[in-house]
Amino acid sequence: MSNFINDANWRYATKKFDTTKKLSNEDLETLKEAIRLTASSYGLQPYKVFIIENPEIRAKIQPVAWGQSQIVDASQLIVFANVTNFGETEIDAYIKNMSETRGIPVESIQGYGDFMKSKITALSVEQRNNWTAKQTYLALGNLLNAAAELKIDVTPMEGFDPAAVNEILGLEKLGLNASLLATIGYRHEDDATQHYVKVRKSNEELFINL
Amino acid sequence: MSNFINDANWRYATKKFDTTKKLSNEDLETLKEAIRLTASSYGLQPYKVFIIENPEIRAKIQPVAWGQSQIVDASQLIVFANVTNFGETEIDAYIKNMSETRGIPVESIQGYGDFMKSKITALSVEQRNNWTAKQTYLALGNLLNAAAELKIDVTPMEGFDPAAVNEILGLEKLGLNASLLATIGYRHEDDATQHYVKVRKSNEELFINL
Repeated sequence: MSNFINDANWRYATKKFDTTKKLSNEDLETLKEAIRLTASSYGLQPYKVFIIENPEIRAKIQPVAWGQSQIVDASQLIVFANVTNFGETEIDAYIKNMSETRGIPVESIQGYGDFMKSKITALSVEQRNNWTAKQTYLALGNLLNAAAELKIDVTPMEGFDPAAVNEILGLEKLGLNASLLATIGYRHEDDATQHYVKVRKSNEELFINL
Repeated sequence: MSNFINDANWRYATKKFDTTKKLSNEDLETLKEAIRLTASSYGLQPYKVFIIENPEIRAKIQPVAWGQSQIVDASQLIVFANVTNFGETEIDAYIKNMSETRGIPVESIQGYGDFMKSKITALSVEQRNNWTAKQTYLALGNLLNAAAELKIDVTPMEGFDPAAVNEILGLEKLGLNASLLATIGYRHEDDATQHYVKVRKSNEELFINL
């Protein structure tokens, strides 16, 4: 049995966090590195990730996130915010980063940049925003899986008002939109849901072999 | 250093697969289990996953996926297909599964089913389809991470014509849409891209601490 499967069976969407336990700096850095290494479309990472400890900000977000207690009780609240109206500026920055990282001239990869631009600018603004939002789900996946290895609990959340979170964090003027929330920390021993049997589709329902 | 980080650094989007190497049945079952255990919105898993070995079908998909060689050279091609027009039928099936899995009467969780229905039927068809498509990115994330632990290579692909793949696999009449492709197998030793330095945003560019 792979460690991945054991860890995936261990994790669950924590309903109640232990407010006395905080992540170590080392563990937080590991989770950030897991997010940073996430695969993304063309490698463009079209999002920013807010790591929020500030209790005042979390108290403001809680009521626009269905009042969920995890927002304020967890060690940290993470907000994945996708880039809105992603375009040539971001692609040029990526090409510059690739050039510097790999020590190759920008000119030698400009064709790749132009190719990406042709594909991405062909999309409507709404299609682009959906596409950047989708990439944040891969980042959340890395967070969930890296945390499970470290026996750190994560609750992913789609249940919130994006416009309200955008307003609280001032995301609109940064060209960002709140796509996903996740709270990280340690499950409370009183959280009964940790003992529930996981509900999943059977292999027969989920997979089609051709 | 966590194993997760080591594995994430090991993986890359493989450009050329070794056509002589196939996944073992055991490894394929592990990857399927990793996909099956993926977290999803409300746990609904609103997608199906096609595991395609058939060379004729792969040969048909290759030209509508930018001609990428991985489609036919990899051990398997995986197609993640999100449910279109997700609605009450799928939620009722989930409630039935939860009832059977946990040995509790349907009546005791009908309120939860009604809550999900109220949230999901409030979305437009387009919003629902975007939402189900997003969940497939979490499943891809589990595939990428579980495979990396086993030193199995995966190439995720958004570069394909969804309508054409839908047509080839007959997805429309199944109420499905091709959201993501991924090829799995083993990197060819001649694939130069495996030696390229990974290009990622710095912590300073990616994270905002509050």
